[in-house]
Amino acid sequence: MKKIKVIVPVKTDIWNNEILRTYERYKDPDTELYVVNLKKGPEAIEQHYDKVWSELFTLLEVEKAGNEGYDGVIIYCFCDPALSAAKEKLSIPVLGIMEAGIHLASMLSRKFSIITTIEEGKQTIEDLLKIYGFKRKCVSIRAIGVPVLELSNKQKLMDATLNVCAKAIKEDKAETLVLGCGSMLGIREEISKILNIPIVEPGLAALKLCEDMIGLGLSQSKIAFPVPVSIDRCI
Amino acid sequence: MKKIKVIVPVKTDIWNNEILRTYERYKDPDTELYVVNLKKGPEAIEQHYDKVWSELFTLLEVEKAGNEGYDGVIIYCFCDPALSAAKEKLSIPVLGIMEAGIHLASMLSRKFSIITTIEEGKQTIEDLLKIYGFKRKCVSIRAIGVPVLELSNKQKLMDATLNVCAKAIKEDKAETLVLGCGSMLGIREEISKILNIPIVEPGLAALKLCEDMIGLGLSQSKIAFPVPVSIDRCI
Amino acid sequence: MKKIKVIVPVKTDIWNNEILRTYERYKDPDTELYVVNLKKGPEAIEQHYDKVWSELFTLLEVEKAGNEGYDGVIIYCFCDPALSAAKEKLSIPVLGIMEAGIHLASMLSRKFSIITTIEEGKQTIEDLLKIYGFKRKCVSIRAIGVPVLELSNKQKLMDATLNVCAKAIKEDKAETLVLGCGSMLGIREEISKILNIPIVEPGLAALKLCEDMIGLGLSQSKIAFPVPVSIDRCI
Amino acid sequence: MKKIKVIVPVKTDIWNNEILRTYERYKDPDTELYVVNLKKGPEAIEQHYDKVWSELFTLLEVEKAGNEGYDGVIIYCFCDPALSAAKEKLSIPVLGIMEAGIHLASMLSRKFSIITTIEEGKQTIEDLLKIYGFKRKCVSIRAIGVPVLELSNKQKLMDATLNVCAKAIKEDKAETLVLGCGSMLGIREEISKILNIPIVEPGLAALKLCEDMIGLGLSQSKIAFPVPVSIDRCI
Amino acid sequence: MKKIKVIVPVKTDIWNNEILRTYERYKDPDTELYVVNLKKGPEAIEQHYDKVWSELFTLLEVEKAGNEGYDGVIIYCFCDPALSAAKEKLSIPVLGIMEAGIHLASMLSRKFSIITTIEEGKQTIEDLLKIYGFKRKCVSIRAIGVPVLELSNKQKLMDATLNVCAKAIKEDKAETLVLGCGSMLGIREEISKILNIPIVEPGLAALKLCEDMIGLGLSQSKIAFPVPVSIDRCI
Amino acid sequence: MKKIKVIVPVKTDIWNNEILRTYERYKDPDTELYVVNLKKGPEAIEQHYDKVWSELFTLLEVEKAGNEGYDGVIIYCFCDPALSAAKEKLSIPVLGIMEAGIHLASMLSRKFSIITTIEEGKQTIEDLLKIYGFKRKCVSIRAIGVPVLELSNKQKLMDATLNVCAKAIKEDKAETLVLGCGSMLGIREEISKILNIPIVEPGLAALKLCEDMIGLGLSQSKIAFPVPVSIDRCI
Repeated sequence: MKKIKVIVPVKTDIWNNEILRTYERYKDPDTELYVVNLKKGPEAIEQHYDKVWSELFTLLEVEKAGNEGYDGVIIYCFCDPALSAAKEKLSIPVLGIMEAGIHLASMLSRKFSIITTIEEGKQTIEDLLKIYGFKRKCVSIRAIGVPVLELSNKQKLMDATLNVCAKAIKEDKAETLVLGCGSMLGIREEISKILNIPIVEPGLAALKLCEDMIGLGLSQSKIAFPVPVSIDRCI
Repeated sequence: MKKIKVIVPVKTDIWNNEILRTYERYKDPDTELYVVNLKKGPEAIEQHYDKVWSELFTLLEVEKAGNEGYDGVIIYCFCDPALSAAKEKLSIPVLGIMEAGIHLASMLSRKFSIITTIEEGKQTIEDLLKIYGFKRKCVSIRAIGVPVLELSNKQKLMDATLNVCAKAIKEDKAETLVLGCGSMLGIREEISKILNIPIVEPGLAALKLCEDMIGLGLSQSKIAFPVPVSIDRCI
Repeated sequence: MKKIKVIVPVKTDIWNNEILRTYERYKDPDTELYVVNLKKGPEAIEQHYDKVWSELFTLLEVEKAGNEGYDGVIIYCFCDPALSAAKEKLSIPVLGIMEAGIHLASMLSRKFSIITTIEEGKQTIEDLLKIYGFKRKCVSIRAIGVPVLELSNKQKLMDATLNVCAKAIKEDKAETLVLGCGSMLGIREEISKILNIPIVEPGLAALKLCEDMIGLGLSQSKIAFPVPVSIDRCI
Repeated sequence: MKKIKVIVPVKTDIWNNEILRTYERYKDPDTELYVVNLKKGPEAIEQHYDKVWSELFTLLEVEKAGNEGYDGVIIYCFCDPALSAAKEKLSIPVLGIMEAGIHLASMLSRKFSIITTIEEGKQTIEDLLKIYGFKRKCVSIRAIGVPVLELSNKQKLMDATLNVCAKAIKEDKAETLVLGCGSMLGIREEISKILNIPIVEPGLAALKLCEDMIGLGLSQSKIAFPVPVSIDRCI
Repeated sequence: MKKIKVIVPVKTDIWNNEILRTYERYKDPDTELYVVNLKKGPEAIEQHYDKVWSELFTLLEVEKAGNEGYDGVIIYCFCDPALSAAKEKLSIPVLGIMEAGIHLASMLSRKFSIITTIEEGKQTIEDLLKIYGFKRKCVSIRAIGVPVLELSNKQKLMDATLNVCAKAIKEDKAETLVLGCGSMLGIREEISKILNIPIVEPGLAALKLCEDMIGLGLSQSKIAFPVPVSIDRCI
Repeated sequence: MKKIKVIVPVKTDIWNNEILRTYERYKDPDTELYVVNLKKGPEAIEQHYDKVWSELFTLLEVEKAGNEGYDGVIIYCFCDPALSAAKEKLSIPVLGIMEAGIHLASMLSRKFSIITTIEEGKQTIEDLLKIYGFKRKCVSIRAIGVPVLELSNKQKLMDATLNVCAKAIKEDKAETLVLGCGSMLGIREEISKILNIPIVEPGLAALKLCEDMIGLGLSQSKIAFPVPVSIDRCI
């Protein structure tokens, strides 16, 4: 049995059901999923500012997971808030959806593009690409011009995304596409068929890689993410 | 059901059973595995020379897989022979164990070392690190000084590997280790426990990532690996 | 007149006086300084975990500065907590001491080393080096093995640091040294003289560069750090 | 006397005469040339797939050269098939025309473009640029849209190439051009004059560099390309 | 007191007054400035050729500064002529305006563009970006098409520059701009306001950073720039 | 006929004969060589300071060559003084011996070391490696501790060099060696035999590559090295 806690690091619960439904479709038979959102924090994360507002409350949810008998944790937001801190704190595997998504994309071709929500959100993604060592493989980050909180309008999402994906292929020579927001749900398969290109939904990448790690008995290196020495000195 | 062909790209069958046993332990319940080796080719691959001797015969096995109803193919050798050619020829996912292994390692920490067989084998690995874009994340490639065909001596393998792994951690600041040969089997868990570091067995990484791709309906990008235009002009 | 708020992003005030004394010695005649620490947060920051605990409370202090008539803000900790978020929120210049310190070091030679407190603290520094684009110029990060909260013991600090600095010069070919913690105060000049190498105290670099920006009418680019679009949706 | 074997790694002999004529015009007085093609293999190489089909048969021709008293070997195809394996097997210098061509181009300016045949052929070239360490110096790879086997139509070749070369100069800021196929013969001088830019014919670069190495008593490093340890275990 | 020698490394004095006036406006109260030009050398520096013509005469002026009681030296030309040689010869800080300008720009955002005079001048700037390690942060070098000696026509300078700056922002995604010539004076503030982007005048960056170094008791590392061992063997 | 001017950019003629003798042994039959040294300048070049002292006088010799009917020019010093300026000024090929040497070395293996004279001389070499784009291929620069002017003592040169070369192979994993000074003559063959590694004498690399360019009708790109626009404004 693989018991996974999925933390949606925003203070709205509007995404929980759709994430769960999507996950149920692709999970392993022996995987059990719990999706939670934050009680405090931002409603959406698009910039460094929102990210800071999310990280402490996310970390508190992560810490609880350590005592709740989980086998793995997924932080479900493309800017991977509090990810390194969470990896330090826990010994069970913690995955961010951007980190998982770009690793899976990198297995499908040598160059990918990230399709995200708004221009203002590109900077956090660029910083993470550098930290994860994938700056050179990502040929472009393109924004569809729709903020996170309007993504539940599927038609608007579909129209805006399809167009931008086509540009990434033609102008940036993208060979694979990564959807750059956890809430760009339900459009992957259709766009992939229309444009004939593999598309990675980052949340699904995180789900499968989390199951893989649990199954293989692997977790983040504690040499890279040492247990915090000064935990008791916080707050 | 996920039907996967595992091609061991050498002309000996001494590894087939152990690979199958290892895979059976970690595979998904609905995965079916077929392990085959080459009729012609090298007995082991350690250098560019052996690799060329393996690639054509490996490609022939890959091509057959396209007509045999498989859902995925794993080329089971750390130098990933004929991998790009195979990705061009087939539309089902084809995975190499080095490519899979270093991607999984890269999810566990920012820096890893590769522990391989003999000094002469490092050059093919270095070339692939550059192609896959992981040169900077790999802090060292170290050889245990035991050629592939002597790896079935488990005690010798264990002793040589443990010592070299410890050096990679201490001197090269490795945070995760990747076993750099498909035949370094049955030692991962013990060394991981002794040295307290995650160790990736590349064959297992390929198995899980191949299952993930099949499950998610993903495969290598045909923009990156276009169908060969001149197939009928070969031989 | 240049009015600068210096935020010490930890919940102890033991460093405030020494920082102020050091700053008074080097500041421009028309600079006015206010040093504050956090009411909540970690006592010291050495890892990603502590950093997350500091960032939200630091950001709150930053936001206040925007309404208090300051001309500039310095976040006084080497892991630059909440720096990008602060640059987004404010239009006056916000400086982190690591970012300032490595830029000044890079003017003094082509290669520098960072001398920090404990091994566990190296990972946050490495991530920032990548984000700031200085990974290649930094030939090593070395730890003196003394945690932040023991740095006020000057003799211990001096002994440990001198020895490690000498190694960075000899073994890593460092040409300039950067002290990798805001609390490594009062040792720069002596070690510099003994080892005949320029040493950058990052807090001083931040002070002078902040004054420079205010004097020249410059501030962080709002193209790079756009005003948060979703501010009102936080907490 | 410098006796050089030129291996055209395809199973057609339509290029042999033109290559020989071109080489005779530029070779040193004491150079003796033998041009051979493969008995088996692909008719043309444009992708990874064709390359694998060529490599084993090319390697067999290379191995023979070791016993035929040659002083050097040129593998005459821009994707440098079996080059590293050949360098391992022989102690006399073995040159690939892409490797030679980009090195010569890199002596003429800091940035070059490669003008090749078809879009599908770019991927093998990109992989080699990474292995050879010239990814950053190559500002673009552009395809003229004419497959290898139609290159003998000189007017078609000339028209298509001239146009694409002009674009590489204007849009990609190329400072030197490298013809990215061994069969793009007889157009270098005219295009160079029209566009006022140096153009490297890779076959000629390989010829001169092979003569240089023989003359200077140099050959590939056997540390980098060690003699295969397992030769007798192949086939 | 900070006594700084400003060497304008060309044989015309037409810029001296404007540089002095600009500097007087931004300098620290206790800074004393002396602006000198060369007696021999080029009238303007735009290419490697002019640079060589300037360097020896610049170095002679630098050497004199060592005996004239200065606290710092600024070489006032964007191609930083004789800068490394000057840093070797002197122990007081020597600054070039390009090196200072791009360091300050790099503090304002992660990506900048350089706006220079003529196309022919881009190559010296590119070489320096590589030496200084800022190649990746500079997203473009754009030329306004006006040679140095026509820059005193302020209207022409303004018109040409504004247009090119706008393109750098829109097409190259520049987040900060650096004026790539010491004589592009008196336009920074206006363009910055119109385009809403920080603009670095490199001469001012050098002034403030030179004052910073003098104030902090810092100078170029003599490990990186060792005193010339063979001085007496020159000329 | 290929008429080549070899400029030894120092004001001593002690090297001229040995260079000529070495060149006569390896040159093409139709090559005619003229070796000249400077009338003014440094006696030896080891640092940026000496280089500036050499460059103007070297450039004057280069300019004369343009009117003396030469087909090519070699600037015979490992720090390639005035090379880019010379490439701008002339349309016949101009080669520096470092640039030629590292290109040839890069054809022999993927990693090389440079063995130079004294520690102080490493910095100019490092800057050029960055400009030429070979920083990553050069695994180390090691100094033998013998200044240029003592290199004519062959026994001392041999002893010091052999020892350092062995270290580069063992500790830095060098696969090819480049002698990092034009005056390290007459030792290449012996050391190469003893250590079983290819060694590049940079002067010979420049000779053969210069002959190649002349033979192929190639010269430096005038897009990369445009004719100086302001020639008449110098001195």
